[in-house]
Formats: sequence, structure tokens, C-alpha cells
Amino acid sequence: MNEAIRLCRELAEFSEEAGKTTRTFLSAPMKDVHRLLGDRLRAAGMKVWIDAIGNLRAVRGDARRLIVASHLDTVPDAGAFDGVLGVVLGVLMAEALAGQPHKLGLEVIGFSEEEGVRFGVPFLGSRAVVGTLQPTSAMLQAIRHFGLDPAQLPEVRLAPGAIGYLEFHIEQGPVLDSLDLPLAVVDSIVGQTRMEMLFLGTANHAGTTPMLARKDALACAAEWILEVEKEGRSQSGLVATVGQIENTPNASNAIPGQVRVSLDVRDACDQVREAAVEKLIAGAYRIAPTRGLAVNVSRRATQSTVRMDPALSDVLASSGMHRMSSGAGHDAMIVAPHVPATMLFVRSPGGVSHSPKESVHEADVEAAFGVGLQFFKDLEKQLV
Amino acid sequence: MNEAIRLCRELAEFSEEAGKTTRTFLSAPMKDVHRLLGDRLRAAGMKVWIDAIGNLRAVRGDARRLIVASHLDTVPDAGAFDGVLGVVLGVLMAEALAGQPHKLGLEVIGFSEEEGVRFGVPFLGSRAVVGTLQPTSAMLQAIRHFGLDPAQLPEVRLAPGAIGYLEFHIEQGPVLDSLDLPLAVVDSIVGQTRMEMLFLGTANHAGTTPMLARKDALACAAEWILEVEKEGRSQSGLVATVGQIENTPNASNAIPGQVRVSLDVRDACDQVREAAVEKLIAGAYRIAPTRGLAVNVSRRATQSTVRMDPALSDVLASSGMHRMSSGAGHDAMIVAPHVPATMLFVRSPGGVSHSPKESVHEADVEAAFGVGLQFFKDLEKQLV
Repeated sequence: MNEAIRLCRELAEFSEEAGKTTRTFLSAPMKDVHRLLGDRLRAAGMKVWIDAIGNLRAVRGDARRLIVASHLDTVPDAGAFDGVLGVVLGVLMAEALAGQPHKLGLEVIGFSEEEGVRFGVPFLGSRAVVGTLQPTSAMLQAIRHFGLDPAQLPEVRLAPGAIGYLEFHIEQGPVLDSLDLPLAVVDSIVGQTRMEMLFLGTANHAGTTPMLARKDALACAAEWILEVEKEGRSQSGLVATVGQIENTPNASNAIPGQVRVSLDVRDACDQVREAAVEKLIAGAYRIAPTRGLAVNVSRRATQSTVRMDPALSDVLASSGMHRMSSGAGHDAMIVAPHVPATMLFVRSPGGVSHSPKESVHEADVEAAFGVGLQFFKDLEKQLV
Repeated sequence: MNEAIRLCRELAEFSEEAGKTTRTFLSAPMKDVHRLLGDRLRAAGMKVWIDAIGNLRAVRGDARRLIVASHLDTVPDAGAFDGVLGVVLGVLMAEALAGQPHKLGLEVIGFSEEEGVRFGVPFLGSRAVVGTLQPTSAMLQAIRHFGLDPAQLPEVRLAPGAIGYLEFHIEQGPVLDSLDLPLAVVDSIVGQTRMEMLFLGTANHAGTTPMLARKDALACAAEWILEVEKEGRSQSGLVATVGQIENTPNASNAIPGQVRVSLDVRDACDQVREAAVEKLIAGAYRIAPTRGLAVNVSRRATQSTVRMDPALSDVLASSGMHRMSSGAGHDAMIVAPHVPATMLFVRSPGGVSHSPKESVHEADVEAAFGVGLQFFKDLEKQLV
């Protein structure tokens, strides 16, 4: 078996839950991960430490260096590859490059937190290395409990000199699988708008209230949900999702009085995303009154598209590789404003992720590793 | 103030919850209700007792009698009139008819349970008087705890000789209010089909899964919910409601994988109801595959329409009163197969019920009382 896959599967055993892979921020099994990967990085001649946010850090060579990083935490009942594969490939690159002198230094980072599971806030590890983390007192307590010192948090920041950041990651979507391609260079991490719409009707008896006397909040929401779907389908690349719904009183014999739904809109172009959001808000304000309902609209979060560094991506994609946007957020998005960053996606068979069924093809992982090594060498050649 | 309304408001104070009216099957405040109404019935010359299911019972005169009944229990945070008004009007009829000899006897019943709140099974009081109650061990324990003897349950049954059953009840819907009418005779209590549909799609990442690669169970359910609404609107009298929805995983960043919805269809004509149900089942089986989803259909309960006794209803409606179906279930539906039964609906202002805002107009209640007394006298005249 490919060593990267074998190692990912071994790390998947380090879990908070027996029989499942669940490894949240600074949980106990994270120490086993640090030990196993730290030993290998040390054996590859790197200086290794755990920083104050719990990131696994390893450096060698010149300060002008390539950072190879991804995250070591997982969602509950996770697969073996989301995040972990990117760190493992960094470790294998360090091993492959060991024992020879290089003009280009290397830093490998295993971020302690990306999924946002433990504290509802994602990217704790990468935010800390770029100096944008705002730790809560609960986070500080978790840091202390893991045996780390919150006073050292300022020293977590990246040393100057990094010329590039590379993150290998499984695609977590079906695009490469449907194109029958192993890899893609990521151009951008798409922007996202999260909203909540509250449709306000009138709860009433399902038996005694004639159809035309109803203000059914669920029927109203249903009409709008189909508009969301239609809008999402109106442009390739755009996605619009109602993932969450809460109905009140939610009884089989009561006409729904209030329905709250989430809206998640993403597109690589911020203007396209914003236009879709405005259209869907207008749709809610148009549909509700035709049914005698009111609607409350709340914008929860807006994140603009983050472009990967074009020059760096060109080096990575030298062989004419497929390029695509990432619909999911990644640590690269946090690092990109500070260090030129790029990402390499590895096909997710069936598009499956956040599931024990998550997998990778052996040949794809081998190809990714080769692209990563070539990328290091191509960057090194550019150094004066 | 009208005495019936005053008495209903006084009884509404007897509650399990301070500041609200909540009075479930055999709860402590039911004893206060029994005492207050029992005293008045006794003073009106009736023989009064609490039967083994906790019904307030009162009889006078001949076994050939009119039963006037409704229920004394309430939903949580109820109004003052649902059920209670029907019993109170029976008490006032007993008082109005007291002191004079009558060929026609009178029985007043305050049923202990109609709403199904405490044990999830409705109509416990009326089922017991017609001998169709199947008590669970929890019910038997509640009976004992209230100080009653379950061994006496067989004696709860109605004595022979009743020639009619009259139930006054608030409409709990907006029909009379929208027609600006005070009262209606109920022709039938509509049949009902309750079902559950489970739409089976595929949960996936809301950011990385293109729109055309989705099997979104909520969008599928939304399409079907609009068909339910359209079908309900296709015939006057028919109502079709999706009141309950359960979405999995129900996260704003996840495409819904499974959605379970309830369906409640009612119509006075069983054939119309059954045809609508078949059409909606076919709709689910048609819509789901066009989206790559599967659907599971479960039939939960079917209740045929119960006709009120036409001759009795004609006597009640002698003045050319409006006639309508009841979209909600009532004790009259349980009694109807055993004793000729009819109902008199009192307008619900705004159609509001199962709410502290439930109300009645004073003039409507006075009119209902007058119709009830005239009904007693008209039935008495028919006796040989």
C-alpha cells in the first residue's frame, strides 16, 4: 500500500471514540498523532515542536522556505484523509528531501484545528500562525489542559521568509471524480454568504381552517426553497443551499406558523454570489406577502472569495493540470493574505467526505506526491 | 356578563399551571371543576356522580333522555371555551329545566378526556361511556391516583334509553366568523388520513457539490409540499396539510439527505379524501425519481367521516340554521354509532382556538342556549 495512505489509516486509529475517527482540537489522541509524525520529521532531520495553539511544527534549512501544511483535527465520525493527507504528504516530502543540501528551506505544519467542531470557530491553528486568532477563555483553558502555555501564543506566528504555502487536500466533492481526473490546482476558495430567513405565518388547526384562510409558513418556505434551487442552477459554479429548517409548532395537525430556514450561497465570483443573494432576498419579500405572510431576513456571515497566488499556482500546474475553485473553506484561505499560497486537490471517489467512507485512489496520492516534490524543486530553481 | 361565559372563565382558573389554563386527564384541578359544576347540577335536582374514568355525570327524569355533553380537559395553555362551554351549557339547561316535570329525561356529562394530551390517546371519557375504551396500565394507575376504582369501569357505560346526544362546541375555525353567522348545525365530522412520507436523498457538502450532482431531500419535499397545498385547494371543503417536518442532518452547510414530513388530509366525503391521498402518494412517487431520490410512504391512521343523525340534526336546525362539517374530531363522533348524535357549533371569533386568545360572542352563546332549550322541548313533543 502507498505509505501516505497507510499512515493516514494508522492515524485514523487515534480517536476520542472507539471504532470511529473523531479527533477534535487538543483532544488526547492528538498527542499520539504529534508523537508519531514528530518522530518521523525528527528522523528526517527537522527541528520539531508543538506550538502554543497545538500545531505540529517542523522546519529545516533556509528561512526562504516552502510551507507544506494542512490540519490534523477531524469532524466527528470522520474519514481518514480530510486534512491528515496534506500533513502526511508534507512529512513524506520532508523524508524524500532529507540528507541533501537544499537552497530552499521546508516547513511542515499540522494545524491543530480547522473544522470548528470543539468551539464552533474554525481555523484556530492557521489563524494563530498568521496572528489573527482571538482566543476565548475556553480556548485558553483547553490550551493549558493540553500542557501548553497560552503566554507563548504570540510566538506561534510564522517566521519571516516563507516564499510559498502548499496545501494538499482531498477535494471533498464529486468534480474530479466525474471528470475522471486525479488532481487539480485550486485557483480560489469561493466566497460564501450565510443567511437566515424567518417566514411568519399563523399556526392554526389543520382540520378546521379552510385552505384559502391559511397563512402556512411551511408552504411559503417550500415555494422559496424551490426558488433557491432554481437560482443555484442558473449558473455553473454557483451553489445555493437550504440545509437547515425549523418549523413551529411542528405538529401533524397544526398549520405551520413559523418556519426558519438557512441559506448558504457560494460562488468563485463575489459579484455573482452577491447578485444571487439579493435575488433570493427579493424572492422571499415577494413570495411572503402574496400568501399574507411576513418574512425576516438576517445576514449571518459573508466571506469574500480568496484567490490563490497565480504565479505559485502556475508553477504547481506546470503540466497543464486541471484548475478549479474550492467550494469548501481551507487553511490556505487563512494563510493566503500573508504568504503566497496554493492548493492541490486529490480526487475524492464518489465525492464522499466527512464520512468513514471517505477514500482516495492510491495512484492519485502517488501523483500528488510527485507533483509536490516537483513543485519544491521548481521553486528552488527560481531562487537566486 | 352572560352566565355561561362567566362560568367558563371561572373554570379556566382551575389549572395545573399558574397563569395559564392547562387541565389534563385526571389532573388535580379537575376535582375543583367537578365540585363547582356538581354542586350546581345537584342544586338543579339531578343525581350527580363521578364515574370510574373521571367523567362528571348527572341524570334526572326518565331513561328516555337527551344527553348534553362535551369535555372538561384542555390542551396546554388553552382558552376558556373549548369543551368546557358545551358542559356549562348543559348545566344551564339543567337549571332552566329544573323544578318542572318533563316527559324527556336529561343527562349531562363532562367528559374527563378528549384532547389526548396526557396519554397521547384522545376521547378517553367518551370511549368509556360507549364501552370502547382500552385502558393502558398507566391510565389505570392515573384512575387509582385520582381516587377512583378501575374495577368500576364497566359501569361507566351509558344506561339504555337515550334518544339523542347534543354537543355544543366552539367551531375552532374561521368559517362562521367569515360568514358572519353565530351558529351552525354539524352534519358530519370529517374523515381523516394521516401519513408520513420519507424522502431519501444524499447528504453532502453544500460548498463542494455542484447543483446538478445533488439529491436534495428538502428541495424534493418542498416540491411535494406545494403539490399538497395545490391538491387541498382543488376542492372546497378538502384540506391537506404538511404540519411536521424533520430534516437530516439539518446543518446549514449540508445538503439535506433525508426529510420526513407528515400529511393530514380531511374531507366530509371519504371518496374525495381517499382520491386526494392517492393522488398525493402518486405525486411523491413521481417527483422523487425525477430528482434521483427514493420515497417511503407510511399510512399512520385513517378515520372515515362520521355522519351526525340526520333526523336529530333537522330538529336542531329547525330554524333554517347554517349546516357545516366539522374538520376537527369531537366526542360526538365517538358517541354517534351508539346514540343518535348532533352538534351545535358556536362561532369562534377569528377562528382562534387552542390559545388563551380563544373567545366567544355573548350573543352567540345566548343564541346557542336558546336553540338547545328549544331542541329539548321539540324532542319532548315527539315523545309518545
